[in-house]
Amino acid sequence: MPTIPPRAEGPVGPVGPADLPDDLVDGLVAVLDLVRRGVARTRPEVVRASGLGRSVVAGRVARLLELGVLDEHGTAPSSGGRAPRELALRHDAGVVLVAPLGASRLTVGVTDLAGTLLASLDEPASIADGPGPVLDRVDELFARLLDGLAAERGPVPVWGVGVGLPGPVEFLSGRPNRPPIMPGWDDADVRARLSERWDAPTWVDNDVNLMALGEVVARRHARQGRAPLGDRPDQPEDMLFVKVGTGIGAGLVARGRLLRGAHGCAGDIGHVEAPGGADVVCRCGNTGCLEAVAGGAALVRRAAEMAADGTSPALARLAAAAPGGLGVEEVVRAAQEGDRTSVEMVQASGHLVGQVLATLVNFFDPGLLVLGGRLGAGSDLLLASVRQGVYQRSLPLATRDLRVESAAAGDDPGLAGAAAMVLDELFGREQLRRWLPQGSPSGRRATAA
Amino acid sequence: MPTIPPRAEGPVGPVGPADLPDDLVDGLVAVLDLVRRGVARTRPEVVRASGLGRSVVAGRVARLLELGVLDEHGTAPSSGGRAPRELALRHDAGVVLVAPLGASRLTVGVTDLAGTLLASLDEPASIADGPGPVLDRVDELFARLLDGLAAERGPVPVWGVGVGLPGPVEFLSGRPNRPPIMPGWDDADVRARLSERWDAPTWVDNDVNLMALGEVVARRHARQGRAPLGDRPDQPEDMLFVKVGTGIGAGLVARGRLLRGAHGCAGDIGHVEAPGGADVVCRCGNTGCLEAVAGGAALVRRAAEMAADGTSPALARLAAAAPGGLGVEEVVRAAQEGDRTSVEMVQASGHLVGQVLATLVNFFDPGLLVLGGRLGAGSDLLLASVRQGVYQRSLPLATRDLRVESAAAGDDPGLAGAAAMVLDELFGREQLRRWLPQGSPSGRRATAA
Repeated sequence: MPTIPPRAEGPVGPVGPADLPDDLVDGLVAVLDLVRRGVARTRPEVVRASGLGRSVVAGRVARLLELGVLDEHGTAPSSGGRAPRELALRHDAGVVLVAPLGASRLTVGVTDLAGTLLASLDEPASIADGPGPVLDRVDELFARLLDGLAAERGPVPVWGVGVGLPGPVEFLSGRPNRPPIMPGWDDADVRARLSERWDAPTWVDNDVNLMALGEVVARRHARQGRAPLGDRPDQPEDMLFVKVGTGIGAGLVARGRLLRGAHGCAGDIGHVEAPGGADVVCRCGNTGCLEAVAGGAALVRRAAEMAADGTSPALARLAAAAPGGLGVEEVVRAAQEGDRTSVEMVQASGHLVGQVLATLVNFFDPGLLVLGGRLGAGSDLLLASVRQGVYQRSLPLATRDLRVESAAAGDDPGLAGAAAMVLDELFGREQLRRWLPQGSPSGRRATAA
Repeated sequence: MPTIPPRAEGPVGPVGPADLPDDLVDGLVAVLDLVRRGVARTRPEVVRASGLGRSVVAGRVARLLELGVLDEHGTAPSSGGRAPRELALRHDAGVVLVAPLGASRLTVGVTDLAGTLLASLDEPASIADGPGPVLDRVDELFARLLDGLAAERGPVPVWGVGVGLPGPVEFLSGRPNRPPIMPGWDDADVRARLSERWDAPTWVDNDVNLMALGEVVARRHARQGRAPLGDRPDQPEDMLFVKVGTGIGAGLVARGRLLRGAHGCAGDIGHVEAPGGADVVCRCGNTGCLEAVAGGAALVRRAAEMAADGTSPALARLAAAAPGGLGVEEVVRAAQEGDRTSVEMVQASGHLVGQVLATLVNFFDPGLLVLGGRLGAGSDLLLASVRQGVYQRSLPLATRDLRVESAAAGDDPGLAGAAAMVLDELFGREQLRRWLPQGSPSGRRATAA
């Protein structure tokens, strides 16, 4: 049996979340952030880094220790006088369960409270099986991961759960909204389903937002030479992350934070009108959608025709050799090998994506445009075509030092992104506000013991 | 002679801006915000609203009094014990000079530190005369406004200057960047020019961003039933403001704050590609730009042809009656009066704008889409066509409760917006950080006296 931890979102006492002043909570978040980011490791360092008085810092640190999110141990090097105790995030006080679900693949993982991946599992699965079977399977795999951990180090409480879905999600409610490729999922209460099973606060977002968060983490990691998954950026960043895979979507990062929009569906660019694609019917029912004309699924369909009718012997050869038939990978490989048909298809796709992105670059003015997804991150040819389209139509000021790059995140940016989402929420204002009257999971355990 | 106030951005002492900890400055901004917004009027109210300790509040208030941005006077009603002194923003301690400049009109104003307009002047002027003549004229009008004020109430120090320009502006440097309709202005150091003349910190932004800020202020005002110009929003708001006038541009508001992008040119949608306008040459040199096909200037040009060749007798009549010839107003009026040619032109323009906005709504997911500008705010016909385009192509989740409305701000949202920009910056982190070592203008005056 997996560890069943104490409730993380129990009934709230007489002092409800709404009664706690923002400034108090923000003060705690600020101190916690300094320690989480490794900027300050002792009370004197927090005093120096924050400019707050010693007694204010002592009070806030005491509150965070009491809440069970910080820990103190050992002593740090002293600059004279009594050596100060070292403060640290209690990164092993609990774990986070993450499940970035794809259209045809199910990935689950478990991370510590710093976002470091402890274990993961991966298997083929169809999201179209519906929420019941898919989430049952997620639960089984979560349990298996926790059993493995428990065998190693004893039971560990689950502090939070993060789920990614391949379709529009209303972030505040944690429910998918009319997702085109997820029959049976419309308005499913994914959050309630998982938060009840794991007795932990749960957040749900679309896969592209999580990939964008994962990209932010990976780029910060590369800059700092260490891996603070789920950490907060050091400075504002304006990034537009675009996934070009089977489908097409975007994630918006402004001032280092994900912008989810008024309904949590910002970045849904797969179904905007593509120039000149008026006669193509999309899976969403509309015609001429960018995804239907330039997405990986469209390319694979056209590639299969070219392989079948003899137009492209290279694609026919790759189709015969691939166990599951032609996929995005095969089209990318054929283009890399110089197959003229494939090169033209990928370039045409990049040109269309670039035209739409030129509009979005003018509108959003990002400093960095990142292409991810199997087609976006996998093909230099696509990157070049997109670049061309963007530079051709965007304003000089917007493109003056705009970088257009492939994704830096590794094979599964969704795992890192899901952990980052959970940890940002868990150590952010709303969750601390809930914990303050009652303690965090480990704080309550400590009190109960 | 106008009042020449003490330096607002003098040489900084040994403790430079970069050495001041963020947390200290943020703490002051938080307390100042509570008083500016009218949430707290006494120290005990600040304690209650912020959750901070009494001594922390006392320290921060003392610092703000010393800086000269807050004032205390009289006594507030007591809840027992000694009646607390009432705190207030020193809104009459100085003034803000604002100049939202249009392509063919020059407007200047002076507001107090709460953003209330004290006086304004307005005259025809061509921005194409270049920065020298235009800014000289702005200085003359500023001086006239200050002379008028000085005659009434004695000399008043200028705390800040805000300028709006009808073209792309790099917000951080305060310089226009290749503005298409502003010959001679490219890279002009507008900030230095005005901050030296008026010895006050100066901010420059494009006209549409200032209109968007003015709209935020007007809507907050309407909600609260009072007019806190330059105030900060009470809650996050996601608004897309689109100006359809001679040109076309947008302002993005996320979580109640203006998003300016990595280069300060977010919202530049006038030169994105319009569907089906490939053969129209734009003033920017590119072809098929939205503005060239659907903007007011394009409509007026087409309307003049229709008036001349007898296609539209209504337009010919209005052209003959208008002193300056046909303008956007005449086309809007002809459409309102049922002139078929004008109705069709306005509808076609609205349809194109709506198609582009559908993409941006999917991408940005605003809760509110506001149409401003002489064509955008003036024509219900245009509003209806834009609405149709947006609802037709946007995702169900994004449009579920999206409001598409005309601008609520009055005749000159640029004045209110420019004041809001200056006050947000003046009472924000960066400016307080500069003031802390040396005092604000009135704080320094108080010390020198």
